[in-house]
Amino acid sequence: MTIVYVAIACGLLAVVYGFLTSGQVLRASAGEAKMQDIAAAIQEGAKAYLGRQYRTIAFVGVIVAIILAFTLGWLSTIGFVIGAVLSGVAGYVGMNISVRANVRTAEAARSSLQRGLTIAFRSGAVTGMLVAGLGLLAISVFFWYLVGPAGHAPNDREIIEALTALAFGASLISIFARLGGGIFTKAADVGADLVGKVEAGIPEDDPRNPATIADNVGDNVGDCAGMAADLFETYVVTLGLTMVSIALLVQASGTELMSLMALPLIVGGVCIVTSIIGTYAVRLGRSESIMGALYKGFWTAAILAIPAIYGVTTWALGDMNAVIGGAGFLNGGSSAMTPEAAAGAAASAGFTGMDLFWCMLIGLGVTGALVWITEFYTGTNYRPVKSIAKSSETGHGTNVIQGLAVSLESTAMPTIVIVVAVIATYQLAGIIGIAFGATSMLALAGMVIALDAYGPVTDNAGGIAEMAGLPDDVRGRTDALDAVGNTTKAVTKGYAIGSAALAALVLFGAYTTDLDRYSTALGLTGPVNFSLSNPYIIVGLLLGALLPYLFGAFGMTAVGRAAGSVVEDVRVQFRDDPGIMAGTSRPNYARTVDIVTKAAIKEMIIPSLLPVLSPIAVFFIVSWVGGKPQGFATLGAMLLGVIVSGLFVAISMTSGGGAWDNAKKYIEDGNYGGKGSEAHKAAVTGDTVGDPYKDTAGPAVNPMIKITNIVALLLLAALAAGGG
Amino acid sequence: MTIVYVAIACGLLAVVYGFLTSGQVLRASAGEAKMQDIAAAIQEGAKAYLGRQYRTIAFVGVIVAIILAFTLGWLSTIGFVIGAVLSGVAGYVGMNISVRANVRTAEAARSSLQRGLTIAFRSGAVTGMLVAGLGLLAISVFFWYLVGPAGHAPNDREIIEALTALAFGASLISIFARLGGGIFTKAADVGADLVGKVEAGIPEDDPRNPATIADNVGDNVGDCAGMAADLFETYVVTLGLTMVSIALLVQASGTELMSLMALPLIVGGVCIVTSIIGTYAVRLGRSESIMGALYKGFWTAAILAIPAIYGVTTWALGDMNAVIGGAGFLNGGSSAMTPEAAAGAAASAGFTGMDLFWCMLIGLGVTGALVWITEFYTGTNYRPVKSIAKSSETGHGTNVIQGLAVSLESTAMPTIVIVVAVIATYQLAGIIGIAFGATSMLALAGMVIALDAYGPVTDNAGGIAEMAGLPDDVRGRTDALDAVGNTTKAVTKGYAIGSAALAALVLFGAYTTDLDRYSTALGLTGPVNFSLSNPYIIVGLLLGALLPYLFGAFGMTAVGRAAGSVVEDVRVQFRDDPGIMAGTSRPNYARTVDIVTKAAIKEMIIPSLLPVLSPIAVFFIVSWVGGKPQGFATLGAMLLGVIVSGLFVAISMTSGGGAWDNAKKYIEDGNYGGKGSEAHKAAVTGDTVGDPYKDTAGPAVNPMIKITNIVALLLLAALAAGGG
Repeated sequence: MTIVYVAIACGLLAVVYGFLTSGQVLRASAGEAKMQDIAAAIQEGAKAYLGRQYRTIAFVGVIVAIILAFTLGWLSTIGFVIGAVLSGVAGYVGMNISVRANVRTAEAARSSLQRGLTIAFRSGAVTGMLVAGLGLLAISVFFWYLVGPAGHAPNDREIIEALTALAFGASLISIFARLGGGIFTKAADVGADLVGKVEAGIPEDDPRNPATIADNVGDNVGDCAGMAADLFETYVVTLGLTMVSIALLVQASGTELMSLMALPLIVGGVCIVTSIIGTYAVRLGRSESIMGALYKGFWTAAILAIPAIYGVTTWALGDMNAVIGGAGFLNGGSSAMTPEAAAGAAASAGFTGMDLFWCMLIGLGVTGALVWITEFYTGTNYRPVKSIAKSSETGHGTNVIQGLAVSLESTAMPTIVIVVAVIATYQLAGIIGIAFGATSMLALAGMVIALDAYGPVTDNAGGIAEMAGLPDDVRGRTDALDAVGNTTKAVTKGYAIGSAALAALVLFGAYTTDLDRYSTALGLTGPVNFSLSNPYIIVGLLLGALLPYLFGAFGMTAVGRAAGSVVEDVRVQFRDDPGIMAGTSRPNYARTVDIVTKAAIKEMIIPSLLPVLSPIAVFFIVSWVGGKPQGFATLGAMLLGVIVSGLFVAISMTSGGGAWDNAKKYIEDGNYGGKGSEAHKAAVTGDTVGDPYKDTAGPAVNPMIKITNIVALLLLAALAAGGG
Repeated sequence: MTIVYVAIACGLLAVVYGFLTSGQVLRASAGEAKMQDIAAAIQEGAKAYLGRQYRTIAFVGVIVAIILAFTLGWLSTIGFVIGAVLSGVAGYVGMNISVRANVRTAEAARSSLQRGLTIAFRSGAVTGMLVAGLGLLAISVFFWYLVGPAGHAPNDREIIEALTALAFGASLISIFARLGGGIFTKAADVGADLVGKVEAGIPEDDPRNPATIADNVGDNVGDCAGMAADLFETYVVTLGLTMVSIALLVQASGTELMSLMALPLIVGGVCIVTSIIGTYAVRLGRSESIMGALYKGFWTAAILAIPAIYGVTTWALGDMNAVIGGAGFLNGGSSAMTPEAAAGAAASAGFTGMDLFWCMLIGLGVTGALVWITEFYTGTNYRPVKSIAKSSETGHGTNVIQGLAVSLESTAMPTIVIVVAVIATYQLAGIIGIAFGATSMLALAGMVIALDAYGPVTDNAGGIAEMAGLPDDVRGRTDALDAVGNTTKAVTKGYAIGSAALAALVLFGAYTTDLDRYSTALGLTGPVNFSLSNPYIIVGLLLGALLPYLFGAFGMTAVGRAAGSVVEDVRVQFRDDPGIMAGTSRPNYARTVDIVTKAAIKEMIIPSLLPVLSPIAVFFIVSWVGGKPQGFATLGAMLLGVIVSGLFVAISMTSGGGAWDNAKKYIEDGNYGGKGSEAHKAAVTGDTVGDPYKDTAGPAVNPMIKITNIVALLLLAALAAGGG
């Protein structure tokens, strides 16, 4: 239990860091009145949007909570509520600091690049540490309560279900937040560009454009609040489900089991500490390389994590070479062991603390590799982005063709990294090894989120500098800060989806073990046939693979439709008041914000429900046609189909979108004719196409994958509770 | 054996039809000298390209044949050579009639739409019937030889391997032909558009554009010869592997086995007859609807196929209600039955002739459904194309976004149709039921190819009319004929990939049965663990899913690069001889054709080898890391990963590309501002993006899926022959 207390302390430390650092950020000057006015408008819009979004989600959440209360009992319902509420809080807090740091970053950029970077990065770090801290607190406090005051054994059914429900709460909120925020930000961005840059011929962030405040609000509610909710979900699901899989699969008890289940918590805890140390390493060197400064922070956190993880693993497990679990540890104490489980168990009979340490090292390695690969595919210094920029010379069509080629290609290296990690961690410690690999990836979440959340702040700072008419060199500095934001944003998405691939395997392991445990309650007479030679497995894989495509189609269409409503509103404003274009009257920013808000909320609902309802529908339809065992087989295969296809859809969209965006920036830096050239126009088209790819459809695939899996787990539990 | 003779007779009938009809086409007038000159240039270019392509492929083919001769013996080598040579012949013959019919269609369109349609469709029918006829002859004559003169039992190892090798020959050629032809046609098309329409501002098919002959050559070598080789492959693989799976899986012997194995051949045979009848039903009605005329032919062939299939099934199997195979038919007589196979066998213990008839009816239903769905997603009368056209109003970016959304969405309905078909046919007759479903889909190949091959002929006819300066109303008629070509082309691709999904399941069934049979020779001590809970299965699924992405990336990049070389050559020609633009001197068409030829051949090699070498590499690497059983498990999962991801990649690319193309045509028909408007420019961008999507990367996924599977089967056989 001491381990859990230390983990809780680390979580609290993150929260304290968040408060202290946000104090530092807020003490910085917010600049002149005009800047503050603009910032206030952005703040107001962001709060209005999030308020409405959360009210809508709350409606769905309450219904789900009631269903959970009736099917799985009050402990699970509490878990669900904690996950849901804290996911909302993470998003809200992230947005809250970011809408205050934007104007302060613009003001700080007046004096120097370093000062701008400091404010922007610190505000990102606040979001990062709060997300990781709240995530860690949610699980560890809840776990402490369950095994302490509530008196459950660590592998009691109630704990497993309650932790799963906690993850479900986080996932459900995050899919709405990611998608709603993603639709908002890109509808406003695309709409503002179409009607401003293309039709009216005014530059980006021109104050005469009525959609410009909405565009800046979008950065905060999508790239900041939506991202924070998404990563909160990823953090909670990964750590929580690692604990669940230990409880389900490892044949251990008493202190050994307790220490093992607490290990993910303390690993998360010490990595928060190394991440906090890392934040202080972010400084511009002599080369003034912003990416270099951010990397210093990341590598400091990652390298310090190695001895830290070794230390806590030794502390938690004692003898690093003692075997845990023993032969058959994958069996989880079930009497009806399937032939597959037996084969898996034989492949890895027990594991040692040292094995787990290696698995966690592999997880850190995967994170590092994904960061590097993402930079390769989205950075302006490498072949892919340059090839898109070059193909812009021959027109819009070739720019898009090359961008699509890069987006398809960008899936290869991450897949190979993930495949190698799966094989290596599985060889070391079976499914548990894969789970610990994912845990150590997520342990660095605080630092990764800090890098990402820094992006929207600098993007906003640039917008405010433009609108407030600050001198050109200020805008130059904020642009430089913003450019690396494209890469860091893509990094987080690749990282989240990569960890999702590992987590999905763990979730599938939990699903099969659960099936096995509940087989009597579910009315199953024999093991479910998960062999690829069962055609229902193919059916499940195909249906699962379809989900990311359909979800992506919904997301892209939603952005197009919502952007269309922005265009119409702005056209009306320009027509009704010619003073706007003349610069004599102020456009009605709030009306545009309100229109995007309504459109985004409306558009997010159906697609978000797709991954929640599909597993349930598929299970019941297939069970009705082919019998219950095939229903469970199809559902299980569907879970893997979602990840097999979702991984590619998500990586291709997020890397491809980032590459398009930076190809435009590369041309704007003076290559292939620079700003205003024909190549630049083609690159703007590519950037527009990449927008919903990278910020709406692509990133929302990550929570979608998890939610499908978790719904399946809860469906099993509910069916078992209902006697099949 | 009588059944086989009748099938051979039907195959010969198709060849006779092809000769007679091509005589009719060639007797039509080829128009004035100028038209004949242009047509001669196209002919020359197409022949030169195909000649060089086949020489390159022959080089690879000879190496593969030698390897086969040493590993699997001379019967397999002969099978491989027959498949390879006839695939080449099918492509060559298709190209040959199409480069002669183009100019005759242009000439016929001078007098009436009906006459133009007749010439173009008949030439398509020649290709269609020759592909189906040659395919049927290849398998049935080879099978006759093996069970007759060579004296093998129908389920002898030699027959199984020889038929697999025949399929391999067809696949290997078709992947090169599909990809090489696809790169040629789209590089020429995109290159000609970029430098002609965009840079020089001259219309499509303007004789001053040096790339215009290359563009027309491309239609013949890509959309005609490449498509014919692809469909030849699909036909041979589907029918051949249905026979192989019967030999492997069904516990029957003597006449019963022989009749069952000959059933796919006779079904193919009678459907050639109904397809020939169908070709005579293609006539314009009073509404002058061209699509309606083509559909009359298709539906005649499909509806007549129902009683025909019923008739031959009764004839071949006798009592339609007698049970074939009996309990355990999935076992194939192996002693080491895996638990999975046992579960599968229990699910469907034997089947009747009536069951097979229903499965074939389902196959026909799938074909009909896929035709309708493809028309919905690519036809100008429905929401998807209209939505892309509408989104063109707001610019290039929104056109591409909406096109991508449509392409993602277009995967949903075909997936559901395929899933329903898999479940239904499997419930009726297990894996054999799925195989017969695929067989009846392919039985209509002659008709489907006829509809498709008609497209490039009309496309060329339009080009010739433009270049020869024929009156505007002639171009109007050829344009009308061409417009439906976009839909029929997309139909064939959806149909081929849909049948590939079913065929892949059959191939996977063959793979697992082979593993089981050879287990001693392969040195396996127990069943291979194909359960989804084995992480190596996920590894295989992920690696398999990666292949279509990587392959797509290569294809798209290749088109971009090759198109770039066209642009450069044309720029040089314009610069060196100003007389070209003035219309006083003739551009050097042949030089451009030659440049595209070299580029396409160079670009096709690496991507085509990807699916051939990947399964071998994956097997050996994984076996080395995780042991041989995991190597086989990973390889098996990889086969399904390719189809699970390839189905979506292929459908989204081919339907999306068709939708973009027709959205442009819809605008050109006078909607949203018509030709020359800003919306039209945006639609041209979408069309350009869709070009390599629908004609290069997308369709080549179909042979890619098959080749990966077949290589795996042959690898097993080779390993077993080598003693593991």
